[in-house]
Amino acid sequence: MKALVTGFDPFGGDEVNPSSLAVSKLKKRIAGIAVHTVELPTSYAKSAGVLRAAIDKVRPDIVLCVGQAGGRSELCLERIGINVQDARIRDNDGKQPIDKPVVKEGPAAYFATLPIKACVAALRKAGLPAAVSNTAGTFVCNHILYSLMDIAQDHPAAFRGGFLHIPYVPEQVARLGAAPSMAVEDIVRGIEIILEVSAERTVDIQTVEGRIS
Amino acid sequence: MKALVTGFDPFGGDEVNPSSLAVSKLKKRIAGIAVHTVELPTSYAKSAGVLRAAIDKVRPDIVLCVGQAGGRSELCLERIGINVQDARIRDNDGKQPIDKPVVKEGPAAYFATLPIKACVAALRKAGLPAAVSNTAGTFVCNHILYSLMDIAQDHPAAFRGGFLHIPYVPEQVARLGAAPSMAVEDIVRGIEIILEVSAERTVDIQTVEGRIS
Amino acid sequence: MKALVTGFDPFGGDEVNPSSLAVSKLKKRIAGIAVHTVELPTSYAKSAGVLRAAIDKVRPDIVLCVGQAGGRSELCLERIGINVQDARIRDNDGKQPIDKPVVKEGPAAYFATLPIKACVAALRKAGLPAAVSNTAGTFVCNHILYSLMDIAQDHPAAFRGGFLHIPYVPEQVARLGAAPSMAVEDIVRGIEIILEVSAERTVDIQTVEGRIS
Amino acid sequence: MKALVTGFDPFGGDEVNPSSLAVSKLKKRIAGIAVHTVELPTSYAKSAGVLRAAIDKVRPDIVLCVGQAGGRSELCLERIGINVQDARIRDNDGKQPIDKPVVKEGPAAYFATLPIKACVAALRKAGLPAAVSNTAGTFVCNHILYSLMDIAQDHPAAFRGGFLHIPYVPEQVARLGAAPSMAVEDIVRGIEIILEVSAERTVDIQTVEGRIS
Repeated sequence: MKALVTGFDPFGGDEVNPSSLAVSKLKKRIAGIAVHTVELPTSYAKSAGVLRAAIDKVRPDIVLCVGQAGGRSELCLERIGINVQDARIRDNDGKQPIDKPVVKEGPAAYFATLPIKACVAALRKAGLPAAVSNTAGTFVCNHILYSLMDIAQDHPAAFRGGFLHIPYVPEQVARLGAAPSMAVEDIVRGIEIILEVSAERTVDIQTVEGRIS
Repeated sequence: MKALVTGFDPFGGDEVNPSSLAVSKLKKRIAGIAVHTVELPTSYAKSAGVLRAAIDKVRPDIVLCVGQAGGRSELCLERIGINVQDARIRDNDGKQPIDKPVVKEGPAAYFATLPIKACVAALRKAGLPAAVSNTAGTFVCNHILYSLMDIAQDHPAAFRGGFLHIPYVPEQVARLGAAPSMAVEDIVRGIEIILEVSAERTVDIQTVEGRIS
Repeated sequence: MKALVTGFDPFGGDEVNPSSLAVSKLKKRIAGIAVHTVELPTSYAKSAGVLRAAIDKVRPDIVLCVGQAGGRSELCLERIGINVQDARIRDNDGKQPIDKPVVKEGPAAYFATLPIKACVAALRKAGLPAAVSNTAGTFVCNHILYSLMDIAQDHPAAFRGGFLHIPYVPEQVARLGAAPSMAVEDIVRGIEIILEVSAERTVDIQTVEGRIS
Repeated sequence: MKALVTGFDPFGGDEVNPSSLAVSKLKKRIAGIAVHTVELPTSYAKSAGVLRAAIDKVRPDIVLCVGQAGGRSELCLERIGINVQDARIRDNDGKQPIDKPVVKEGPAAYFATLPIKACVAALRKAGLPAAVSNTAGTFVCNHILYSLMDIAQDHPAAFRGGFLHIPYVPEQVARLGAAPSMAVEDIVRGIEIILEVSAERTVDIQTVEGRIS
C-alpha cells in the first residue's frame, strides 16, 4: 500500500507553513504503508501539475493533501472541493483569480473519498481535536482538493483522496496574536492516524458530524 | 417580475425562527417586484415538496430561501448547496439522516444563481453586515438550497435562485446567551435589498470575497 | 431623580462611536428620571475632567458611562474598573500610556455601584442580549469607569455609577468586516432600561452571572 | 531561590485539569530555582488554606498559581485578582457563592507582582502563544489569585506572586468539541519560562499589551 501526502509552501507573508512542516516529519513507513511526500506550491497555476506528476510517479492508493487553515482549532477532514477559484489574497505567483472555475466545464464539486468520519473518530480516540468540515474555502487548498478528485476520475492509479486542514502551529500564533494552534507533533500524529484509518477501510462509518449551518 | 421568498418554521427547541419572522414582515411589492412568501417546514422529507408547489403556483423569476445560521454575525449569501443530508439534530419530523444524498444520483453540488457578490456589496453600502458563505451546512437549509437549484434545472419557470443565512435575532440571544444577533428590521431590509439587486442584474460583479479556508 | 449618561467620541480611525450615537438619541425624561447627557473625549488626559464638570453641574443620582467594545455581542454591564492605563492604540490626544495608574496611590480597583445583575435580567426580559463583564479593558473606557467611581468617593452628589460596554452598530461591521453588532435602537432601549432599573433599586439581585475564566 | 507552583484538581465534570497535569511534570530545578509544587482543591472554602500552608512550609520567593481557562488559546498572565466570589457552577464542595467577597473588608482588587509583560515577551520569543489578561473570572481561579496576593501583604516570606491561565489540552477538546487547546509539553515549557523570567527580574518591561475592551 502506498500513500502520497502533500503540504504547501508558505504564503501570505508567513515564514512557515505548518502543512509542509508536518508532512516533512512523517515516517517513511506507517503501519505497512509506504509514505511518499511532496511539497506543492501555493499557486493556482502550478499546484495541480505538481500533484499530478507526483501521483503519476508514486501511483498511490491513497492521497492526502494537507493545508493550513489559520483560525481553526481542530484537524479538519474536508468533505468536498468546489469548482471555484476565488482568492482573498494573491497566491505565490502573485495571481488572484476571482470566481474562475478550477476546471472549465467541470462538475460543481467533488466529494473526498477517504473515510472522513472514521478518521475523525480515530483522531478523537487518540486525544486529538478533530472535525468534519464542509468547506475548504476558495483559495489554493480548495483548488487542490477539487483538482485531486478530478484527477482521480480517470487516473490509472485508482487512488482514494482527501484533504486535511490543520490549525496554525504555536510559533505562528506567538507572532500573529490570538488564534488557536496545535503542536506540530500532534499534527504529525494526526496525519499518521488518518493514513492508517484510510488504508484500513474503504467504507466510512455513520456518525453524527453534520453541521446545522 | 415575481419573487418567491421562503422562511423556515422553528426547530431544535427554539420558539421562533428569525427566517420566517423576517419573511412575514416583507412588503408585498418591492421596487416593482411582486413578493410572494411561504413558510417551509424544517423537514428533510417535506420542505422541498412545499417549495416546489409554491414555485409551480407563483412561477417566480427569483427564489430566495432564508434560514437561520445561529452564531453567524452577518447576512450570508450562500454560494453552493451540496448533495448531502447529514443532520446534527433531529428535524421537525424527528428524522436525523446521516450522509444521505438530497437527490439520488444527483450532482455533488449546485451553485446559487443569484448575484451574490453584488448583493453583498449593496447590503454593505446600506450599512448591513454581509458576506459570501461557502457552506450552508448539512441540515435542512443546505437541503433546500440544493433542492431549489435542482428544481431550477428543468422547471418551466426559468427562475434564478439562492439562499440567505441570517443571524439570530436579539430576543433569541437574550434567552440562549452569548452569540451575535441582528435586529429583525435589518434582516427584512437586507432581504429587500437582495431582491432588488437580484431583479436588476443577472451577471454578478467581480469582487474580493473569497475565503482562504 | 437625575441621571447623567455619557458617550465617547470616535477613536482609532472609526468615523462613528456607537456610544455617543446612542446617547444622543436618549429621551430627556425616562420613567420620571431627568436624563442629562455629555460626550467625553477619548482622551486619558481630558475625559475625567469633562466627566467631573458634568457631575458638578448636573448633580446626578445615577451616572452611566457608555463605551464601545468592538467584538462583543451583548450589552455588557461592567463590574469593576482597575487603576491602570495601558493603551493598545493612541488615544485622541495621540497619547499611549503604558502601565500608568489612573490615580496615583489610588486603590487597585473600584466596583460599579449600579445594580448590574438586575439590569442584565431586565435587559434580557426585554429581549436584549446582555451580560455582566469583569473587565472593561485598559483603555479610556476603563479609565473613565475607575475615574467615575473615584469621583464618587467624596463627591457631594452622592451618586451611584456604572459603565456599559456596547457592541459595534451594523454600519461599522458593514465597513470593518465580520464582528457582532447591535442596532442603535436596541442600544438606546437598553440604556433606558438600565436607567429605569438603576433608579428603582439600590440593592442588586443575586443571580448566576459569574464567569469561570 | 525557591518557587512554589500550584495547579487545581479537575472540576465541572472534567476528568483532568491541565493545570495540575502540567504542574506535575515540572522539573524540580529550573535555572537554579528550586521548584515546589502543590495541588489545590477547586474549592472556595479550602483552596486558600492549602495555598497558605504550602507558602508557610516552602517560604518561596515566587508563587505561580496555574488554572484552566477553557476556551482561551494562549498562556494568559493575569494582571489582577478581584474581591469577588461569583460562581457560574458549583465548586468541588458543591458550593456556589454569589457575589460574596473573597476577604471581607478586603480591597477591591490586588495586582499580580510577577513581571507579566516580560513573561509574555519571553514566551512568544520561545514560540509559545501568550497574552496579558485583565480578568481571571470570578470562580476559584480568581479567588486564589486574590487570596495569594492578600497573603503576600504581610507574609514573612516576602514572595512575589501571579496567576497563569492555560488553555485546554488536546485530549479535552477531543472529548468536548471545538475549542482551542495547547499541548501539555508546551504548557510545561511555558511555566518554566515564566519561572525563569520571574526569578530574573523584579521590575516589568513596558510593552504594548493593553486591551481596548
